[in-house]
Amino acid sequence: MSTLMRIDLFGKSFTSEEIGAYPDYKGFGGRGFTSKVVFAEVPPTCHPLGENNKLVIAPGLLSGSSAANSGRLSIGAKSPLTGGIKESNVGGNVSFKLARLGIRGLILDGKVPPGELVYIVVGKDGVVFHDALRFKGMKNYELVEKLKADFGERAGILSIGPAGEMMMGSASVACTDTNGHPSRHAGRGGMGAVMGSKGVKAIVVDDNGAAGVEYSDKEAFRAAAATFRDALRSHDVTKPEGALYTYGTNVLTNIINEAGAYPTRNFTSGRFEGAEKISGERMTEIIKERGGRHYHSGCTTCIIQCSNVYLNKNKEYVTSALEYETIWAHGAHCGIDDLDAIAEMDRLCDDYGLDTIETGCALGVAMAGGIKSFGDAEGAIELIHEIGKGSPLGRILGNGAAVTGRLLGVEDTAVVKGQGLPAYDPRAIKGNGVTYATSTMGADHTAGYCVATNILRCGGYVDPLSKDGQVDLSRNLQIATAALDSAGLCVFVAFAILDIKEGLEAIPRMLNARFGWNMTLDDVAKHGQEILKVERAFNDAAGFTKIDDRLPEFFKKKKLPPHNTVFDISDEDLDTVFNF
Amino acid sequence: MSTLMRIDLFGKSFTSEEIGAYPDYKGFGGRGFTSKVVFAEVPPTCHPLGENNKLVIAPGLLSGSSAANSGRLSIGAKSPLTGGIKESNVGGNVSFKLARLGIRGLILDGKVPPGELVYIVVGKDGVVFHDALRFKGMKNYELVEKLKADFGERAGILSIGPAGEMMMGSASVACTDTNGHPSRHAGRGGMGAVMGSKGVKAIVVDDNGAAGVEYSDKEAFRAAAATFRDALRSHDVTKPEGALYTYGTNVLTNIINEAGAYPTRNFTSGRFEGAEKISGERMTEIIKERGGRHYHSGCTTCIIQCSNVYLNKNKEYVTSALEYETIWAHGAHCGIDDLDAIAEMDRLCDDYGLDTIETGCALGVAMAGGIKSFGDAEGAIELIHEIGKGSPLGRILGNGAAVTGRLLGVEDTAVVKGQGLPAYDPRAIKGNGVTYATSTMGADHTAGYCVATNILRCGGYVDPLSKDGQVDLSRNLQIATAALDSAGLCVFVAFAILDIKEGLEAIPRMLNARFGWNMTLDDVAKHGQEILKVERAFNDAAGFTKIDDRLPEFFKKKKLPPHNTVFDISDEDLDTVFNF
Repeated sequence: MSTLMRIDLFGKSFTSEEIGAYPDYKGFGGRGFTSKVVFAEVPPTCHPLGENNKLVIAPGLLSGSSAANSGRLSIGAKSPLTGGIKESNVGGNVSFKLARLGIRGLILDGKVPPGELVYIVVGKDGVVFHDALRFKGMKNYELVEKLKADFGERAGILSIGPAGEMMMGSASVACTDTNGHPSRHAGRGGMGAVMGSKGVKAIVVDDNGAAGVEYSDKEAFRAAAATFRDALRSHDVTKPEGALYTYGTNVLTNIINEAGAYPTRNFTSGRFEGAEKISGERMTEIIKERGGRHYHSGCTTCIIQCSNVYLNKNKEYVTSALEYETIWAHGAHCGIDDLDAIAEMDRLCDDYGLDTIETGCALGVAMAGGIKSFGDAEGAIELIHEIGKGSPLGRILGNGAAVTGRLLGVEDTAVVKGQGLPAYDPRAIKGNGVTYATSTMGADHTAGYCVATNILRCGGYVDPLSKDGQVDLSRNLQIATAALDSAGLCVFVAFAILDIKEGLEAIPRMLNARFGWNMTLDDVAKHGQEILKVERAFNDAAGFTKIDDRLPEFFKKKKLPPHNTVFDISDEDLDTVFNF
Repeated sequence: MSTLMRIDLFGKSFTSEEIGAYPDYKGFGGRGFTSKVVFAEVPPTCHPLGENNKLVIAPGLLSGSSAANSGRLSIGAKSPLTGGIKESNVGGNVSFKLARLGIRGLILDGKVPPGELVYIVVGKDGVVFHDALRFKGMKNYELVEKLKADFGERAGILSIGPAGEMMMGSASVACTDTNGHPSRHAGRGGMGAVMGSKGVKAIVVDDNGAAGVEYSDKEAFRAAAATFRDALRSHDVTKPEGALYTYGTNVLTNIINEAGAYPTRNFTSGRFEGAEKISGERMTEIIKERGGRHYHSGCTTCIIQCSNVYLNKNKEYVTSALEYETIWAHGAHCGIDDLDAIAEMDRLCDDYGLDTIETGCALGVAMAGGIKSFGDAEGAIELIHEIGKGSPLGRILGNGAAVTGRLLGVEDTAVVKGQGLPAYDPRAIKGNGVTYATSTMGADHTAGYCVATNILRCGGYVDPLSKDGQVDLSRNLQIATAALDSAGLCVFVAFAILDIKEGLEAIPRMLNARFGWNMTLDDVAKHGQEILKVERAFNDAAGFTKIDDRLPEFFKKKKLPPHNTVFDISDEDLDTVFNF
């Protein structure tokens, strides 16, 4: 049985209903569920921090099962950063637990009464509300330690730091990893601000005594899951001792830099002279020297193990899953080549509850605006503390790159729909440019990760510098990703299943065996399309037009070294992405 | 002969063409000219502070003539505040001089080379460029003194202060008044930021030796102008010793407060207990006591004389035209009832080059966000200095109410299309609510001033608290205003011509006699419609939808004391405003 749990924050009550009561939500999990609920239940023109917005939290369909890499959680709402729909995706240990509690989705409705702050415990007997005023202003690491003291080391915890309480556009929802650290974040789009606006400091998910998931056909599930696992274990990118395992996602630094697509000093170059010093290869050496972990399952059921545990020079824990986009945002984008400083910035972002990408984007723009110099690692760390303090400068930076650029008069600010562009320059990986421009989420690399085919040659090859084929590539990957996000599978499974047909086919097999469905691969893709369509419909109703599906002007005008290319995919072609 | 003068800032050159070469611009002046040029020549999706935006400056059609109150100037561009088209309207002495030079419009194109700052002199022999780096960061009053030392006390000067150089969304273009003070401002929508982005500190208009305007039929013009003048001189609102003459625009404070529509402490009440202390009646007493001027022609050809000259306790000049909206924005909206403090804030805004409305709107929102307490006049003055300094807090405030509300987490921020609502609560003067919601300019009281009919009973009466008739009223006034703005007539002539038919009919008579046209009153209205249509078309192409034609959510939900009304005009009705 899967349930939809509605939490009335003002009244401090909850209801639990069978998902079957909502035919329209029924076949959808994760992003499919959050987007369907936001579309159906949130007024598109409401204030994102007002009582009419809802925070929707949903494990993927396969979460809670033994399927490899099925531990992804979706957090959705109307975004205070973009003004449109948002699904922010996070790993860690919560998705698995929610699914084991039989929960398809939590819907947080309204706000607690003024002046209050609560945390919520979700367990097998429902929801309990606790006063959280003593945690007001507390950072995530300390908060999680305190909650674990009450609820056990293995509790799953979603929480916000000061940034979420201050309702900043970059505020994340932290999620505990498999070691109980608040190091995984539903970062993008300000979901932490929405949680903060509702007066919720944390949600503890306690699956003690949970029934666990049921399988319609356990044997069939086992067989399909084994095929799926074998696919991940045999592909060069995802296998043990493979690229992600050995260097983490940071394997990309040298690759993307080499491709001339590594945005450096606020998107003024595609090559960073300091790339080697912050590369995955160097990072793994440092981690090994200090006794950290260069591979690690940070998310329940993960077998790819792209995560890591990064220690400082004194061999003390700093952060977990020091990742490619984080390293880029605080590194090359800011002209910083000091990995220890970057790790500290990652930790600070996790602790204050900030999206590392949007924060780094804002820092780089602030440097372009003269607030600090490019390369000034100490200055960058200082700026993150300003965000945590909520000083006026911190308020600017903590609300993202778009506002920072506007307030500092930086014309070349790389944002789409108000969200900062991640670590791949659209002039040199044009497929990603199409995704950035057209994604319902604003500039989002995960929404249709064309790097896979443009650079890593998974699922074929499309020349990253050519206009040709990028729209089709982005469209197909956006659809596939929406489906994966509904299933609760990690986006990295895509590398393997783009190349290994049996792995791909195992996904509907797993879904069918779990739920007693009869889905084909085509049906899964149709679900992906349906998710994108409700997201687009929400955005349309919120006032978005095709004009919002554009990259900033400068990508079309200013050539990016070393290839000296511009983003030249026409507006007309961009407008065909959603022709399906 | 009327000319269109294009100024290429990068190349420091200009061309002068007969307006006849542009059939589409030909019959339009002022806002008609600026909006037509912005629509035709500015890419709607360009960055408003980028090289592709144009700053268009145009005297009204009747400017330069002897018509009463014909000295209005329009400054247009794509707005950095709203992202849409903008016409910002200003009085003073420049419009008259430009018209006497035969100039229908100036178009500033591109930007000066990086690192440069210039001022421009426009005279009978064309345009001369001067280095202005020595004026960098200079405030308007000092700057204008220096320029007048070179170009004479009677020069017409447009200039920007530090806010414009910092490209803030609230940055104004200052215009000298008839006394040579930079006290008139094209305030709304950040036209000063556009001028700053182009590297232009000032434009000196020198009409020495100008040919002056020609009349197609001088006698007919004289007769029509006399009829028009008589209308203004006979209406209670506009006549000598009438309401505007005696108390300035600040006559409205007691009236709007009495009507329960005076937005107090960030739109939480329609009555301000301190209204009497900042009212027009009290202001006139103070001005008389100190020997200032309680009536004054601040704009060339003005006979209404709503302007004033305000002195401080030491009988020293502080500011000119201390106006109703300025007094409201820094007064009731901030809970401040100290007229001397408000006058000082007005002066500071003029000096730094800030829209007094948007600045006051931002201050009130900042107070709602806890930055200062409501009623703290010293604190408010301090905040304006922060803007002038460009501190991080100043950058927030100087970019307007919307950004301030967003960054401080103030949900109830009164803005439409990113522009702050002026001094009339839309829940108690619902006609103005329709104008705020639907104007192409963002929330703008002058765009369709329904107060005239809702409260002052000019041109009939529509109950301000009723839904009925407001859409028609706003539509008609928006059309009429666009036509007046094209003619270069002060919006205050509307009070008289709404009631006195001969005055209204004198407008096409004056236009026809000036230009040899054969326009009817209907034709004038059609011009108004055409102006609104190109403005809407620009905004549509820039990505605006009907969702942008909405008041903020809280006006529909929260009741305004003392009438305890909400804004209840339906979205469907709002969507009919532009049905013509």
